[in-house]
Amino acid sequence: MTAYQQFEAHIATLSDILNSISILKWDARTQMPPGGAQTRGYQLATLSRLANEHFAGDKTARILDAVEAEIANEDPDSYRVRAVRQTREYYEIVRRIPAELTAKKAALAPISEHVWSEARQNNDFASFAPYLQQMLDLAKEQAQAIGYSNHPFDALVFEYEPSATAASLRVLFDQLKAGLLPLLQRIVANDKPLEKDLWQHEYEQDKQKAFGLEIAQRFGYDLNRGRLDIAPHPFEISFTCNDVRITTRYHKNFLPMALFGTLHETGHALYEQGVDPSLTRTALTTDFLGQYPVGGTSYGAHESQSRLWENQIGRSRAFWNVHFDRLREYFPEQLADADADLFFRSVNRVRPSLIRVEADEVTYNLHIMLRVEIEMGLLDGSIQVQDLPEIWNAKMQEYLGITPPDDRRGVLQDVHWSGGGFGSFPGYTVGNVMSAQFLDAAHRDVSGLDDALARGDYASLLGWLQSNIYRHGRAYSATELLQRTSGSDLQVKPYLTYLENKFTEVYAL
Amino acid sequence: MTAYQQFEAHIATLSDILNSISILKWDARTQMPPGGAQTRGYQLATLSRLANEHFAGDKTARILDAVEAEIANEDPDSYRVRAVRQTREYYEIVRRIPAELTAKKAALAPISEHVWSEARQNNDFASFAPYLQQMLDLAKEQAQAIGYSNHPFDALVFEYEPSATAASLRVLFDQLKAGLLPLLQRIVANDKPLEKDLWQHEYEQDKQKAFGLEIAQRFGYDLNRGRLDIAPHPFEISFTCNDVRITTRYHKNFLPMALFGTLHETGHALYEQGVDPSLTRTALTTDFLGQYPVGGTSYGAHESQSRLWENQIGRSRAFWNVHFDRLREYFPEQLADADADLFFRSVNRVRPSLIRVEADEVTYNLHIMLRVEIEMGLLDGSIQVQDLPEIWNAKMQEYLGITPPDDRRGVLQDVHWSGGGFGSFPGYTVGNVMSAQFLDAAHRDVSGLDDALARGDYASLLGWLQSNIYRHGRAYSATELLQRTSGSDLQVKPYLTYLENKFTEVYAL
Repeated sequence: MTAYQQFEAHIATLSDILNSISILKWDARTQMPPGGAQTRGYQLATLSRLANEHFAGDKTARILDAVEAEIANEDPDSYRVRAVRQTREYYEIVRRIPAELTAKKAALAPISEHVWSEARQNNDFASFAPYLQQMLDLAKEQAQAIGYSNHPFDALVFEYEPSATAASLRVLFDQLKAGLLPLLQRIVANDKPLEKDLWQHEYEQDKQKAFGLEIAQRFGYDLNRGRLDIAPHPFEISFTCNDVRITTRYHKNFLPMALFGTLHETGHALYEQGVDPSLTRTALTTDFLGQYPVGGTSYGAHESQSRLWENQIGRSRAFWNVHFDRLREYFPEQLADADADLFFRSVNRVRPSLIRVEADEVTYNLHIMLRVEIEMGLLDGSIQVQDLPEIWNAKMQEYLGITPPDDRRGVLQDVHWSGGGFGSFPGYTVGNVMSAQFLDAAHRDVSGLDDALARGDYASLLGWLQSNIYRHGRAYSATELLQRTSGSDLQVKPYLTYLENKFTEVYAL
Repeated sequence: MTAYQQFEAHIATLSDILNSISILKWDARTQMPPGGAQTRGYQLATLSRLANEHFAGDKTARILDAVEAEIANEDPDSYRVRAVRQTREYYEIVRRIPAELTAKKAALAPISEHVWSEARQNNDFASFAPYLQQMLDLAKEQAQAIGYSNHPFDALVFEYEPSATAASLRVLFDQLKAGLLPLLQRIVANDKPLEKDLWQHEYEQDKQKAFGLEIAQRFGYDLNRGRLDIAPHPFEISFTCNDVRITTRYHKNFLPMALFGTLHETGHALYEQGVDPSLTRTALTTDFLGQYPVGGTSYGAHESQSRLWENQIGRSRAFWNVHFDRLREYFPEQLADADADLFFRSVNRVRPSLIRVEADEVTYNLHIMLRVEIEMGLLDGSIQVQDLPEIWNAKMQEYLGITPPDDRRGVLQDVHWSGGGFGSFPGYTVGNVMSAQFLDAAHRDVSGLDDALARGDYASLLGWLQSNIYRHGRAYSATELLQRTSGSDLQVKPYLTYLENKFTEVYAL
């Protein structure tokens, strides 16, 4: 075997373990009987430990030394060299994180998540605070171990969005805020009830599912390599490009929940299914830090695709002009008096609200901004855990003009911090911003794209995304993908322009 | 940590990997989209390799040496000492099997199974023969590596039924044959069509499922730690006693297929759910040779429970006397003209038939005998692969009085040999035989058991099985379980008596 073949075999084993972990997680969230939770935790912990031992051990160093020597004269831009370079980069990071720290975090996370879940239910922040403090302390330790120049947040956000830093995110959010707040004010000022409330009807779940899957397949989701299930917290998960599963949740009245949830996860799934099969089980589809996503290059890049298919396509006027009649075939009574225009406006209501996952396109990133500001403050010590409810509510009032009536619908609403996931939130906003840049680039490159979309023909858009983004797996960073397609770094303007145009029309501003 | 704690931790890791493998297999058979098959194969191969490396390595020897010294003076009959002793026993066997042999077998098995599947479809034994020859050669190699005194079959059957040998099985089958053949002849001579054919109606699948689950739960199957799915080849699988899943398959007319399939797998599941939780992730619930079953002590012991609940309970007159009316509530039209007696006789038809998995209680073990005789012949060289179709058909004619019209319904019907599973068939018959001994012992120990069963009250039977068999996991061998409960080794007589009594009544012999 060449050194490169040994390197590939070593990573393939890691990939198999990580994908097995994902299978166990999918099962736990969609199929497992409740009694299985505790032993499933042991199984996950053991596989995670095996993955860590496999990758963080000295054998990886020897394999990397050998393969680096072997490929020293190869094209530095090739997949092969990128694979080795990225593996080395992550290896050096993983090596810096003490095994005891990882073990402590792994042991505490499920307990902390459980306490959070109870605390949210009981609206009792005080009971969760000591656990949040411990997870925060471990996160700070991890940031110290990894190292950073400017802000501890930089060391943590790397895991999810390698191109981002505290400084770059501050600039990004300032620019966003400058565009979003005035737009939101104009919308709120012009808001009036729609002529009909479509969500007072009941929509049969099996038909909701059938329509969602019909559109997902029309977008290009391959059910020979995928499936749709129910989960209380919907997600997409991939066990290689050959098995990419999505989940959604149904509300009997509020049709948009399952439909746009399905299209959102379909966007993630198209990314994973679109990765070049030759990258399967290689470093270029392996998340060495053991976090979702697998095949995509960053949280933001992934979210750019879920949001693009969900919002820029799925909530567009063109989409409903072409698909509304089909939806009405599923729900002839419920939608008897509706038309494409009303439906389009009904799924694009903007209103400051308390819950992030239910937020509209305009307010969504304000929810994220608030969380990222708090995370940075917690990590640099300018915000204390016990002050969180107060600070949360003050920021909600400042950015959205509303104050949560309780912590359940305030600081306790998201699971992320309870599991120690500090640094994961920026990906949501980075993704939103990127999505507009990618879509602009596609429009520039693909002639007749608007016409195709107006016909409900998504093949040319998918083709462009696949050949420019998906197929590369993790070979290019999110920033490189932006540069290669749009010619620039992350830019807020295209996204703000998109929102401005869309909601000026929706609200006749 | 004490040496025993280190030993326990080492085995717990192995248990977690083996259970993860089972989760991946369950998913592959019930949920996985077809496109995922190839990469799932890689994931399974990697986890199997990790399990083997974990257990077969020198670390296990060091841990065993230390713990054996530590427990040298403890009660040799205690769970602790049994756990160490069994681990040592299996370790010495696993060590004897060359890693290359295991790898060759693992690599060839899926290909061979695929070729078999095509060959069966095309009724083309010749295309499968070379693969069967290779799997047989590997099995012979494995028998040589493990070692044996009398017959290579002894080395292989150990994996599934440690108490059995070629010699003991020959005696067993001779005794069975002596009882079964005359009984079968009397039944065939007295056979006449039933007054009504209940399987000409259609039975809705969701109602079939609901009734099956109702009975399974009545038997004691805990859905908080289990679930029922569909699989083309039904099975039960356990990922610790906290998550024990069953599968069945439905026929729209032939109600018994799904119903008794469900009760059969429920029997397996009751065993696994009944293992003492303190044995979870220990040597006493770990199958070191990496084969199903997990918590039960042997194939035969497991099959004794599936057959007991399926046949001795589920196909008994007492059962249908108490449950027929409930079934008719599910299917009022289909069963309008039927009664418990007709139903009882309808699910106990005896008829020599071609397919093992569809065979009745009287002929079933003749199908097994034929296979075991052939396996022994293949292993000791007295039977050649190319002669198999002819030998198969001759034995079918001899034992069952019918000759398969083609190999599809003859020698090609079972998957076992294509995957190299030589030695697994005896468990089916050993289980049948054991089931009668266990049930007799329960009747002896539990006063009023007949009355309880006649009321549809299964708690006292389950309680006896749980406290005498299930809770021990793999602590006692099948033979030890028999001795502890019935006071004797494996005995054919109780089983033959059971069949004689039952079918004398069914057929008014």
